[in-house]
Amino acid sequence: MPRISSLQNPRVRAAARLRDGRQRQKQGRFLIDGLREVARAMDGGVRLPEIFFCPGVPSGEAAAGVISRAAAAGAEVFEVTPPILARLSFGERSEGVVAVGSPARRRLEDLPLSARPLVAVLEGIEKPGNVGAIVRSADAAGLDAIVVANPRTDLYNPNAIRASLGTLFSVPVCEATTGATLDWLRSRGLAIFAARVDGSVPYTQADFRRPAAIVLGSEAEGLSTAWTGKEIEAVRLPMRGAADSLNVSAAAAVLFFEAVRHREEVG
Amino acid sequence: MPRISSLQNPRVRAAARLRDGRQRQKQGRFLIDGLREVARAMDGGVRLPEIFFCPGVPSGEAAAGVISRAAAAGAEVFEVTPPILARLSFGERSEGVVAVGSPARRRLEDLPLSARPLVAVLEGIEKPGNVGAIVRSADAAGLDAIVVANPRTDLYNPNAIRASLGTLFSVPVCEATTGATLDWLRSRGLAIFAARVDGSVPYTQADFRRPAAIVLGSEAEGLSTAWTGKEIEAVRLPMRGAADSLNVSAAAAVLFFEAVRHREEVG
Repeated sequence: MPRISSLQNPRVRAAARLRDGRQRQKQGRFLIDGLREVARAMDGGVRLPEIFFCPGVPSGEAAAGVISRAAAAGAEVFEVTPPILARLSFGERSEGVVAVGSPARRRLEDLPLSARPLVAVLEGIEKPGNVGAIVRSADAAGLDAIVVANPRTDLYNPNAIRASLGTLFSVPVCEATTGATLDWLRSRGLAIFAARVDGSVPYTQADFRRPAAIVLGSEAEGLSTAWTGKEIEAVRLPMRGAADSLNVSAAAAVLFFEAVRHREEVG
Repeated sequence: MPRISSLQNPRVRAAARLRDGRQRQKQGRFLIDGLREVARAMDGGVRLPEIFFCPGVPSGEAAAGVISRAAAAGAEVFEVTPPILARLSFGERSEGVVAVGSPARRRLEDLPLSARPLVAVLEGIEKPGNVGAIVRSADAAGLDAIVVANPRTDLYNPNAIRASLGTLFSVPVCEATTGATLDWLRSRGLAIFAARVDGSVPYTQADFRRPAAIVLGSEAEGLSTAWTGKEIEAVRLPMRGAADSLNVSAAAAVLFFEAVRHREEVG
């Protein structure tokens, strides 16, 4: 395979620029760091134009498997030096493999829904780590899909990918405006449960057995006023301590698993 | 109040060193950044030897209230310049107030337990942000106390304080070895529920109405083998997706609120 040893190599420079969100938008590409994450991206149908590999980083056979699979799917594979790997990697630890991904951007109409769907809507969430953590919980709870409404962070921010453990590539996710999301939820006949600290319905009393969407707002501001129609049920979690709200990813996990519990217990 | 304008001022230098974990251990002090956090520290009985305040940062009357309260409790108050505030602050945003705190280190015997206690044990968790997020969820769920067993991160890391929204000062927390924690749980007659991905009991089937401890392990390794005695019940959350585990703070939130639900529904 071709070997690159210069930090000035144009491919390395183009890939390193993908650490910046504007460059990800501009190039329509993003970086995927880590073996598990790269493997999940391939499982999720993400095209990988390039993959960079640093021999000697002890990821061994698993790395070889991922690399040959990527190559078979059409990725160009480059052997790089440790300083180049460090330039492309995110955070302290690296497993020796960084890929460039080309996202399959989905529209609302593309989201696959089961017979009794459960979806999440995340409106205006600011921290990529929260988006990633919520996607990881949605994966565990078996949600059909996630809509990121009025996004304030890049879905393919490295923090989001990492916090999701790569499940960002296995859970169907799309971005949309809040208005389009509401229209879509209504057109699909989903019951809408908006998580609000002052919600009128305790979350354990909501009927999550229906085809449903759980809607969560931003860390600082919560949900916008768009989520206040009379067909929308505002659900709250008990707050028994000093703070007046839960972390949005903790609230998401509690609500997702409560919905799963309702569906399992009552059928 | 005294005004400090030099970054070389010895008090500023001593306080700035508290950004480092070893210095926190050595000085027995830590930094608290943010109005809400400083107020919660005072509510929780943390002594504040010093408080630094930068006028012009727009926190207004709330800041004045917190500062005068700290002063009345014995804190020395210093007016500082924006560069000094920046040196002491954590992260991008600052509310213009940073305090030096002196932690009231608790022992297991000091933890106050209600008639039917619910406590959490966090073993070997590595990320301070996870510890803080779990404390925030424990506050919301109304847990009695948290034991940080075999700690791998400093409880007073700025990331832990921030992720907890300052609830680290309102929820009773102590550090202990795993061995001492197990002895204490047994001596207090608490049922022990260990969260494990291969646990034999679905978490919804566990009987959390008893006086109980919910035990969670590290991000990478889970719980140590100490948590495998025959009186320990291993509980699992359903994992329906690509990943084989939940984020530890998401798992904690789900388990805490499930325990609360059991107690509220069945009494």
